Amino acid sequence: MTAPGAGAYRIVGMRTHDVRFPTSRELDGSDAMNPDPDYSAAYVVLTTDDGFDGHGFAFTIGRGNDVQTAAIGALEPYVIGRDVEDLGGLYKELVHDSQLRWLGPEKGVMHMAISAVVNALWDLKARRAGKPLWRLLAEMSPEEIVGLVDFRYLSDALTPDQALQILKNAESSKEARINRLMVDGYPAYATSPGWLGYDDDKLRRLCQEALDQGFGQIKLKVGADLADDIRRLTVAREVCGPDFPLSIDANQRWDVGSAIAWVSALAEFRPHWVEEPTSPDDVLGHAAIAEGIRPIPVATGEHVQNRIVFKQLLQAGALSYLQLDAARVGGVNENIAILLLAAKFGVPVCPHAGGVGLCELVQHLAMFDYVAVSGSMDDRVIEYVDHLHEHFTDPVVIEHGRYRAPTAPGFSAEMHAESITAHTYPGGEVWTRA
Amino acid sequence: MTAPGAGAYRIVGMRTHDVRFPTSRELDGSDAMNPDPDYSAAYVVLTTDDGFDGHGFAFTIGRGNDVQTAAIGALEPYVIGRDVEDLGGLYKELVHDSQLRWLGPEKGVMHMAISAVVNALWDLKARRAGKPLWRLLAEMSPEEIVGLVDFRYLSDALTPDQALQILKNAESSKEARINRLMVDGYPAYATSPGWLGYDDDKLRRLCQEALDQGFGQIKLKVGADLADDIRRLTVAREVCGPDFPLSIDANQRWDVGSAIAWVSALAEFRPHWVEEPTSPDDVLGHAAIAEGIRPIPVATGEHVQNRIVFKQLLQAGALSYLQLDAARVGGVNENIAILLLAAKFGVPVCPHAGGVGLCELVQHLAMFDYVAVSGSMDDRVIEYVDHLHEHFTDPVVIEHGRYRAPTAPGFSAEMHAESITAHTYPGGEVWTRA
Repeated sequence: MTAPGAGAYRIVGMRTHDVRFPTSRELDGSDAMNPDPDYSAAYVVLTTDDGFDGHGFAFTIGRGNDVQTAAIGALEPYVIGRDVEDLGGLYKELVHDSQLRWLGPEKGVMHMAISAVVNALWDLKARRAGKPLWRLLAEMSPEEIVGLVDFRYLSDALTPDQALQILKNAESSKEARINRLMVDGYPAYATSPGWLGYDDDKLRRLCQEALDQGFGQIKLKVGADLADDIRRLTVAREVCGPDFPLSIDANQRWDVGSAIAWVSALAEFRPHWVEEPTSPDDVLGHAAIAEGIRPIPVATGEHVQNRIVFKQLLQAGALSYLQLDAARVGGVNENIAILLLAAKFGVPVCPHAGGVGLCELVQHLAMFDYVAVSGSMDDRVIEYVDHLHEHFTDPVVIEHGRYRAPTAPGFSAEMHAESITAHTYPGGEVWTRA
Repeated sequence: MTAPGAGAYRIVGMRTHDVRFPTSRELDGSDAMNPDPDYSAAYVVLTTDDGFDGHGFAFTIGRGNDVQTAAIGALEPYVIGRDVEDLGGLYKELVHDSQLRWLGPEKGVMHMAISAVVNALWDLKARRAGKPLWRLLAEMSPEEIVGLVDFRYLSDALTPDQALQILKNAESSKEARINRLMVDGYPAYATSPGWLGYDDDKLRRLCQEALDQGFGQIKLKVGADLADDIRRLTVAREVCGPDFPLSIDANQRWDVGSAIAWVSALAEFRPHWVEEPTSPDDVLGHAAIAEGIRPIPVATGEHVQNRIVFKQLLQAGALSYLQLDAARVGGVNENIAILLLAAKFGVPVCPHAGGVGLCELVQHLAMFDYVAVSGSMDDRVIEYVDHLHEHFTDPVVIEHGRYRAPTAPGFSAEMHAESITAHTYPGGEVWTRA
């Protein structure tokens, strides 16, 4: 299981940490399905015999983070003794291990564990290369990128040749886009104003602050109570004006029929998109909703389990915005497949972020998409939530409502050691004090 | 979290066991995707303060069974102090816990953990009632059955009223079917002859034995090598004759295009069904394959994660046989939803079994379906694999190729204490001896 790779160094250590932040105490992050999340990371650190390290994590919202951490720990035999020279091969080995695969396949706790480890391997690889991940990926050749992708179950929608062509089309103009990205950054939108747990005054104040800070879109949580939604959207429209992009997010609250009825009742507020109207597993349901609320666009993805479901959402014309998550599918490799699928179908990718550390991760994927895949920032925007960034050694930087391109080597995934210690569950001081 | 229920007894204990059988040593269970499974159970025992117990398990194929066992253990706070009077409510509480839900939702390791606990609760309830589970369920009223189901995300295909009508239609003739079931049992089919790891002589011998034993269908694993498949199907047809139902099972090996091409190349053998042609997540892929290989029927389900994906497979006309699994979706409750969906769409349910203990469980679900839901055994058959039954206290009984209806109280889920001890991983004697 630990066949040595080609490099002259080896991964020699793997540590895991169950890290939880007591965010439910402030109702930060409250929505129609998740009233009291404690943002958590099942966190992993890989170390090499020549002094490098790589950091990764699965994001959860509290209970069960111990199970998620144990699942990551179960992957230790697959990485000890290995290097990061062939992350296409190592990723496929993890995903296709037949015994582990039975626990999914390619979904849920075991898939998120693979995601955390794969992302930590990419963090390590980027640190070794002395580059931020987005640039490391953007500077790889189209052939190398295609070699990272698992095309199994995709060939009816995207073949390796088609993927190669998408990447080659972007090849000649990459340098210009890197330069523009370094100057302009990447547009962000603000979710912080719209949590369900906030009262109208706080909503009004936070919407105004988001406008003042230059964000180009604001998102409101909806779906718990229609009268509340109408009142809160009225407040937000008063602050933002009639034409500002205001999106709404139901966090899977509805069935197909109730989604169509509820969104229709909010149509006068002209939502920029409606996010997660129903179960992330319901491809046909999303397609029926998209048809039923046209022209209001449907967005989804933060809970979509893998590239196979994204493929179908695209095939069915069920979504207008694809919201990949950095830590749910099988890490960087599977997200490259998802970016390529989105490019093939011409659907803009607007990553899910927030939680703890997700902003730090997804910025790299969106920037890689801009430079080397879709080649566009048009109608694209990365979610931004102003929480918990202080716990990271290379936190995101937002200026005038845009993500600045990271320049430090790695995937921006490293948490401060003292943050890990203080928030370790249940023994850390944040939890013992409570 | 442990609000007391209505009963006068309480669940006071929960133990878990990581139990693994070294089946890979004999190539039992080998197929195109799973070359070396070690059939395993993440096993749970609940005990009450008045001396009853309930047994349940998740089935895995080896590595990761520790993670699965830990996930079951994480549910202890939800059941300690409870009773089994309202298993509709308790099931929904487990599935809808917002923090645990984030780890799925409703899929993978955490969902299988919920399945194991829910099934153990049903085993306990049936033991208390002194009835086998199939009869306990069959004797509940249509209203009580509907109260066990979570209709969230189903209402575009099945409403509570429609479910009630299906159950009421079967109500008046239940007693006659119970009597017939007690006399005739339920038809079985044989998978044991067709594992990929067996040579042609063993295949020939086992096919003849299955015929001699009275099984009405035999299934062969396919998908690793087309020439091998043609040779093995030729052998099987020689033994079984041209009209005997021979089904084939690819265990998710193909993409859409390769499935259509491969099955077409085997069409001359007239497969009774082709099982798991591609990813269990690919609803649209299954629909395209069904269209492309018509009139050969498609069967799937053992890896389908929940009722929402089954709903879509039915809506899309993607499958002709629905193969529910007792231990992957959210236990008895979610399987009742799946039986009702299948009845609504007129698709026969032919449960997946084999592994360890799955035959013991699914017989109850198929028999409940016959008595109280679909009302039919026509074109229906339960998978049977002749492995590991000796480890159970109430093993399935097969006579003339049919499952005898169990009569002992419970869900037939209890493993002998000495089997658990000997096969506990890694400390049990079966593993330390190796």
